[in-house]
Amino acid sequence: MNISAMLLVRRVHSLTRLGPLNTQRLQVAPAAASSAVRLWSSSRDDQRSYQRGHSPSWRNALAGLLAGAGAVLAYGLHHHKAERADTIRVQTTEKSSSLPTFSQEEVTKHRSLDDGVWVTYRGGVYDITEFVAMHPGGDKIMLAAGGALEPFWALYAVHNEKHVLDILSEYKVGELSADDLKKQQTVESSDPYALDPKRHPMLHTNSLKPFNAEPPPEILTDSYITPSAFFFKRNHLPVPQVDPASYQLVVEGLPGGVLKLSLEELKTKFPKHTVTATLQCAGNRRSEMNKVKQVKGLNWGLAAIGNATWSGAKLRDVLLAAGYGSDVAQWARHVQFEGLDKDVMGTAYGASIPVNKAVSEEGDVLLAYEMNGEELPADHGFPVRVVVPGTVGARNVKWLRKIIVSTDESSSHWQQNDYKGFSPGIDWDTVDYRSAPAIQELPIQSAITTPSDGAVVYRSAKEVTVKGYAWSGGGREVVRVDVSLDGGKTWQVAQLRGNEKGQGPEFSPPPGRAWAWKLWEVSAPLPPEVQELEIVCKAVDNSYNMQPDTISPIWNLRGVLSNAWHRVKVNIREDAVEE
Amino acid sequence: MNISAMLLVRRVHSLTRLGPLNTQRLQVAPAAASSAVRLWSSSRDDQRSYQRGHSPSWRNALAGLLAGAGAVLAYGLHHHKAERADTIRVQTTEKSSSLPTFSQEEVTKHRSLDDGVWVTYRGGVYDITEFVAMHPGGDKIMLAAGGALEPFWALYAVHNEKHVLDILSEYKVGELSADDLKKQQTVESSDPYALDPKRHPMLHTNSLKPFNAEPPPEILTDSYITPSAFFFKRNHLPVPQVDPASYQLVVEGLPGGVLKLSLEELKTKFPKHTVTATLQCAGNRRSEMNKVKQVKGLNWGLAAIGNATWSGAKLRDVLLAAGYGSDVAQWARHVQFEGLDKDVMGTAYGASIPVNKAVSEEGDVLLAYEMNGEELPADHGFPVRVVVPGTVGARNVKWLRKIIVSTDESSSHWQQNDYKGFSPGIDWDTVDYRSAPAIQELPIQSAITTPSDGAVVYRSAKEVTVKGYAWSGGGREVVRVDVSLDGGKTWQVAQLRGNEKGQGPEFSPPPGRAWAWKLWEVSAPLPPEVQELEIVCKAVDNSYNMQPDTISPIWNLRGVLSNAWHRVKVNIREDAVEE
Repeated sequence: MNISAMLLVRRVHSLTRLGPLNTQRLQVAPAAASSAVRLWSSSRDDQRSYQRGHSPSWRNALAGLLAGAGAVLAYGLHHHKAERADTIRVQTTEKSSSLPTFSQEEVTKHRSLDDGVWVTYRGGVYDITEFVAMHPGGDKIMLAAGGALEPFWALYAVHNEKHVLDILSEYKVGELSADDLKKQQTVESSDPYALDPKRHPMLHTNSLKPFNAEPPPEILTDSYITPSAFFFKRNHLPVPQVDPASYQLVVEGLPGGVLKLSLEELKTKFPKHTVTATLQCAGNRRSEMNKVKQVKGLNWGLAAIGNATWSGAKLRDVLLAAGYGSDVAQWARHVQFEGLDKDVMGTAYGASIPVNKAVSEEGDVLLAYEMNGEELPADHGFPVRVVVPGTVGARNVKWLRKIIVSTDESSSHWQQNDYKGFSPGIDWDTVDYRSAPAIQELPIQSAITTPSDGAVVYRSAKEVTVKGYAWSGGGREVVRVDVSLDGGKTWQVAQLRGNEKGQGPEFSPPPGRAWAWKLWEVSAPLPPEVQELEIVCKAVDNSYNMQPDTISPIWNLRGVLSNAWHRVKVNIREDAVEE
Repeated sequence: MNISAMLLVRRVHSLTRLGPLNTQRLQVAPAAASSAVRLWSSSRDDQRSYQRGHSPSWRNALAGLLAGAGAVLAYGLHHHKAERADTIRVQTTEKSSSLPTFSQEEVTKHRSLDDGVWVTYRGGVYDITEFVAMHPGGDKIMLAAGGALEPFWALYAVHNEKHVLDILSEYKVGELSADDLKKQQTVESSDPYALDPKRHPMLHTNSLKPFNAEPPPEILTDSYITPSAFFFKRNHLPVPQVDPASYQLVVEGLPGGVLKLSLEELKTKFPKHTVTATLQCAGNRRSEMNKVKQVKGLNWGLAAIGNATWSGAKLRDVLLAAGYGSDVAQWARHVQFEGLDKDVMGTAYGASIPVNKAVSEEGDVLLAYEMNGEELPADHGFPVRVVVPGTVGARNVKWLRKIIVSTDESSSHWQQNDYKGFSPGIDWDTVDYRSAPAIQELPIQSAITTPSDGAVVYRSAKEVTVKGYAWSGGGREVVRVDVSLDGGKTWQVAQLRGNEKGQGPEFSPPPGRAWAWKLWEVSAPLPPEVQELEIVCKAVDNSYNMQPDTISPIWNLRGVLSNAWHRVKVNIREDAVEE
């Protein structure tokens, strides 16, 4: 976090709807962090200038920070950092032997800005009053006021970094009494992620808590249907533990009142439909954007996409049963979803889709209880998730608890202040989240799964086989994939595979309902006298939308919608042709 | 036409569904043309090898030629050529005084490949038997067999070029008797384009006969609604003369039998709807593709696009009245349209759209009888045309005569062998028209209308104002236009204008029904110490589709779908800042 950003943050008393600390902005050296705090401490007059009114540019900056903080849940810990996070245990008691001792009762009195905001952490007492306005996670920090930080930090493992503790140590005011510390330790909440399901070890983990991981890319083109174990996992919070027997799906906002459905009712009262649909994370291929300029978010490779068969009731059928009709169509504009995964403030993960997609006979939106012919796995939303074919993963709400027919979009952070695309010239100081629409349909996409970047091909192989996937949002069918071996100068057309039956003749989906990807493949002779191939792919959908050539011009501060041509470089190694 | 292509053509006896001569392929020097003919004449044994069977590569080459010949009607005469076409009158009688004289009766006996194919032209008699298989316009040439060429060449003004007459002169075998010539001249058909309407002189004409023209680009951003006079004209044939009193619209293919509607019935029996929709020619901005590598088609600039209000009956309402229902929905897949404009073989201009677009309540497909609040102008389809919002111009059939609900796409040339996009690596030797879908929805598009390429801006102006249009097919709303002054290195966001009311707050259309373009504008300070600006624009729609960066990788042999970033270069001229 740079100093000007910090100053901007502290001008604001109450930040709403924020996630916890975002270490990407806080990854400054401890010395810099301290000086930032000192600078901040010595500039109290800023407080007054803020009270005279928000200037638009401040508001924009704030919006940016809000967004960044929200990006929390999409926060990008690299694999090794994620592993380290659990094991860091910093001693914070060293330099504090001269500080007074407080009882828990005394600490508990400090839980407002007026009385001061105190928290405890591993036996230390901290007066964080001044830090509250600076907390990138906003006023969620107030939930811990007067109590222990541990339960919250356990939820958001992003705090388990040394520099966070360095900042905290600046605010130390005393020690918790030994008795109270002992009591606290006995009730200290367990790791909220302890009950997360086991995952396949082959997955590449982008964040452990919450769990976010993708398979090795070459797995994707091994089978038209991605096995559930290898399907990318994108969780915002711990996986909720749901008892299927007591599970209830609630449908609200319709004239007939609230409809509640048990899992059994959902399965038996409505026809079961099966749809093969590709889901893609908005941040798929973000790592390529990161190479242009750092963005905020999980550092996804190119495998945050998968193709599965989903079975369940049609959302349309459930809405009709709940009272949706032509009268409702007059006013309804959006269908909101809430998950059972809740943050520390009790706010559920939420998203919405346009009502016409939700109720369209041809929209194929499912309340899915099966994935690839089996019960929905815990990581994919057991017992029920929404599957919105053709739409960004973020709207395919998992562990579905509630459906609300509404005039409005979901007010959730993820609908309003995340998952939107901006111009490359927009930064966190100028972003206005209201200026862009929530991502729904995704643009045309394709990527090379094999060979991988930097792979070696031997001259004796004589040819190179290139494989990949291609998909477009909104039910637009991929009609062509062009592949180049010379960085985009010349192109050949790849063979497409659009069903489970291998390389047979194409199965063509009904117009506007091409929900599933195409896998593609091309074999080409190695060009003579070339040491390196720059393999490029680009796809075309049946609206003839094409991928942009390069990443820079589509760079955006959240690193979403990364769909430029995919490029890999391959070295040709000479060997004895006679062998 | 190169020699190998010529040889490929002559291997084929019967070419179907072809238009007339395509001079683009025939623009060879007379000497080269003669040698091509000689080569052809000396290689009769090719005939036998053809009879042994078509090789796939020949078939592909043939398909390419068929397509090119079909491109006929989309044939690109540049303005000055178009003007010249009418005035060329080549003397073809000079060197033929020693040739015999034939009566019309004798000529008429030669109208088959077996009896020989003779034609007359301005008093000359020509044995074109050997040329029939070479005619890029295919077997339509047989319509003139035994008679005069003049009526046909009048329809396809593309023949009125000197090199065409040079080729013809090679086949001269005699003179028509003076009596018969006189008779012929008295019945010689008048110019079929003579009754075409008057057009605004400001239009830039790409082809006179048929008439194809576009306005100066800067006109487009003068008003949100394009005045009809300046709306681009794209005719495939002469404008049909339609008597509104006897006009009948025919609806076929539905269980209730044929429905016939008079213009009055169409206007009074169905509610009148008004839709603001942008129409764009598939070939808009083709001239930029031509700069990469020559393509076939009219050399459109960037103004083959316009935005108008269209009023008429909903196609959906008419189809329902004609018997469309859930039973029909079981089998119907396409709705075909036929125009009253017919070619010399009596084939009407035709196209089709998917049935779900045609019958969707939200598809907004109109049988329009008004444009911009007035009776449909003759050039735009009087008395009735189809307006298919969000869909390429070619499917918005003008002078509508017939609607056919069908299991199949239109079999017309324009649906099957034209208006499709291919990979840049595909040429006329390898193209397979069946491999690509007919263009329906168009991809995201934007262009700069002012300043124009090569314009001069004075340093004293201090800033430059850039204006343009942006539009996407399929009802996808343009949500952002990025503009760069430095060739795409840095970007700013343009102000969008999405309605008729000027710069007011945006009118946001219902989701999926953004049929109209957005105009945009940005003013930016002139960067110091720069002599030239490379201004670039690119648009984003609400599916976050973006325009490709460059033209080369989307080049295609027909020059359609040209939607790369639009670039103009502007020179900054230093002047005395003090003035």
